[in-house]
Amino acid sequence: MSVTFAQGFSAAGVAAGISSVEGKKDLALVVNNGPLDVAAGVFTSNRFCAAPVQWSRGVVADGRVKAVILNSGGANACTGKPGYEQSEATAKAVAELVGAQPQDVAVCSTGLIGELLPLDNVLAGAKAAYQALASDDQAGADASHAIMTTDTKPKTVTLESGAGWRIGGMVKGSGMIAPQLATMLCVITTDAVVDADLAKAALHAGVETSFNRIDVDGCMSTNDTVLLLASGASDVQADPDEFKALVAKACASLARQIIGDGEGASHDIRIVVSGATSEEAALACGRAVAASNLLKCAISGNDPNWGRIVSSLGTVPQDVAPYDSNKVTVDVNGVRICENGGAGRDRSEVDMTPREVHVDIDLNAGDAQATVWTDDLTHEYVHINADYES
Amino acid sequence: MSVTFAQGFSAAGVAAGISSVEGKKDLALVVNNGPLDVAAGVFTSNRFCAAPVQWSRGVVADGRVKAVILNSGGANACTGKPGYEQSEATAKAVAELVGAQPQDVAVCSTGLIGELLPLDNVLAGAKAAYQALASDDQAGADASHAIMTTDTKPKTVTLESGAGWRIGGMVKGSGMIAPQLATMLCVITTDAVVDADLAKAALHAGVETSFNRIDVDGCMSTNDTVLLLASGASDVQADPDEFKALVAKACASLARQIIGDGEGASHDIRIVVSGATSEEAALACGRAVAASNLLKCAISGNDPNWGRIVSSLGTVPQDVAPYDSNKVTVDVNGVRICENGGAGRDRSEVDMTPREVHVDIDLNAGDAQATVWTDDLTHEYVHINADYES
Repeated sequence: MSVTFAQGFSAAGVAAGISSVEGKKDLALVVNNGPLDVAAGVFTSNRFCAAPVQWSRGVVADGRVKAVILNSGGANACTGKPGYEQSEATAKAVAELVGAQPQDVAVCSTGLIGELLPLDNVLAGAKAAYQALASDDQAGADASHAIMTTDTKPKTVTLESGAGWRIGGMVKGSGMIAPQLATMLCVITTDAVVDADLAKAALHAGVETSFNRIDVDGCMSTNDTVLLLASGASDVQADPDEFKALVAKACASLARQIIGDGEGASHDIRIVVSGATSEEAALACGRAVAASNLLKCAISGNDPNWGRIVSSLGTVPQDVAPYDSNKVTVDVNGVRICENGGAGRDRSEVDMTPREVHVDIDLNAGDAQATVWTDDLTHEYVHINADYES
Repeated sequence: MSVTFAQGFSAAGVAAGISSVEGKKDLALVVNNGPLDVAAGVFTSNRFCAAPVQWSRGVVADGRVKAVILNSGGANACTGKPGYEQSEATAKAVAELVGAQPQDVAVCSTGLIGELLPLDNVLAGAKAAYQALASDDQAGADASHAIMTTDTKPKTVTLESGAGWRIGGMVKGSGMIAPQLATMLCVITTDAVVDADLAKAALHAGVETSFNRIDVDGCMSTNDTVLLLASGASDVQADPDEFKALVAKACASLARQIIGDGEGASHDIRIVVSGATSEEAALACGRAVAASNLLKCAISGNDPNWGRIVSSLGTVPQDVAPYDSNKVTVDVNGVRICENGGAGRDRSEVDMTPREVHVDIDLNAGDAQATVWTDDLTHEYVHINADYES
């Protein structure tokens, strides 16, 4: 399913010999068959951004994308000019196959940092993927498998507007980053009739409240890319507000799936900060708590350690988030274990057995709130990231 | 040894029944016998700062401290007004014993957050410590033991100026923070003749390049306190520059010992960022690298993963640290594994067996540099912070 749920898209996922895992599907192609070729993109802000990010940023700039080629098995990051030339050559090859200009073909890569791709395999794989293109569920599923690295399962979304248009999507992100593997790639498709401005606005807003509010290990990738492609194939003009809402919902679903597949994670942690003077203040507090290794370890040990929650909150400067530390309350899974900045009900009352843990912080300083998701920090996380031999 | 190495100080460490570990020394007393009672202090910037920090900040404000009482076994943090009253009552009791004003007695606590101290035990312990006060090596050693929590060994320093004055010091800090335990307490003593301004300037400068440049897990404690006490007992006026240099050296030695005793740590990681446009820029880059869980996991697995180093560097905004990502080099233990922002020599050439790992980053953008220390992230860290039952 995934990206082919929206009309006007064909996709494929093939094994091209890029990944070191023999026989693994490692190359995906998504083609927008129109009539529109509207697109928007959001990319990593990492200064060591990968060659495909540099290439695709230019492609998306004019709000038009005809096709996206994605590979796992190599990030093509920190590879200099030769790496950029690989992305360019890949786009050219796809453009020739699908009858487009190279500057209408986006390229996404994920995998090892610092190594060039086996370009011959990529180009041969592109041809094979082109031949395999289809618009059925299986084609979408194949594409979502081909972008997986350390993900344990494909992550997809399908949404339908009552007005007669659809959204499909797939994302790759293991929640935690295996050695030298770069992390998130996402393609969202829609058959709604939208223009580039609306696509851009909807994608940026959707990413802001989803992918930008999950923090698995505080590590920003060199390759993060989120693309939105609109074919217009439903022939239905989308209501802008509904479109933004559904794109945001698609992003939120995919982001939640990343958290749910965090390698080694035993708990998905939802942190809601309310009672803030502004959304930015709430967000700063939520991010500070989500970044605490100590809290993440405690939760992996089923300990609702509110001391680690408030000591993280306390690192947010007063001018960023005004609040009185003596008025803060913290509930974990519905039990108010911190009241007025001090001990509340006994933490032994908290049931920590569910995988999803709810940390609800009330700053009692205003009316704004924000939600941030993270995973716990487990032995398995260290194992994956320390002992894994790449 | 430790704080009693400088003349004019007596100290003691006793078991007062505050710690849950039966018979553990858990209360230390350090008294400045003068003739001077000059002092300076640096405290946590955490907004959930503990009661003893709130109390001691007021004590140090006038540049005079006569005695310091320190306890492990309880942080007295997030305990509201009753907690503050405990710190005040403790200071009053010590003041009466040593013949000083309560506002000349600093109080430091470390241990569980969110619980009041067993005040009767603290007050009885203060009396016992007062009776045990001595100026010999054993007294200093006892004090340094009494402030330990999850530290595996006491951490002390002794330095001597050719001019005839001395510095002694002790610090508590396990590198990583066990459940709900707050972290660093430090007392540095000197018999040099200095005024409060010089003491303050020397301590702030010393802390800035030592304790403020170690990052074990990015978690700021509610109780961090560093005190410098000067007795003037050597009767030697310290040269200001030499005084600052030796205080900085004492801080650096103690900070290095904290890193060396990081629970669970298998490597101490020294990150030197050079070629920066300013020290602040170098520091921002060093801190970003030191905060990377992925890098810290990789190093615990003996993997000199330069991809994780540059992807952390890449998160520092251009306006904070101007540099060209294509000119960055990274050496690990002397092997240049990243050159011009891409792959350099093969990382298999790096010998990762030494406990101390040197990460040398050259931004090739200027002449400034900064050094940051951190520990690796190991299974044992997660074990201590997740599975430990408090």
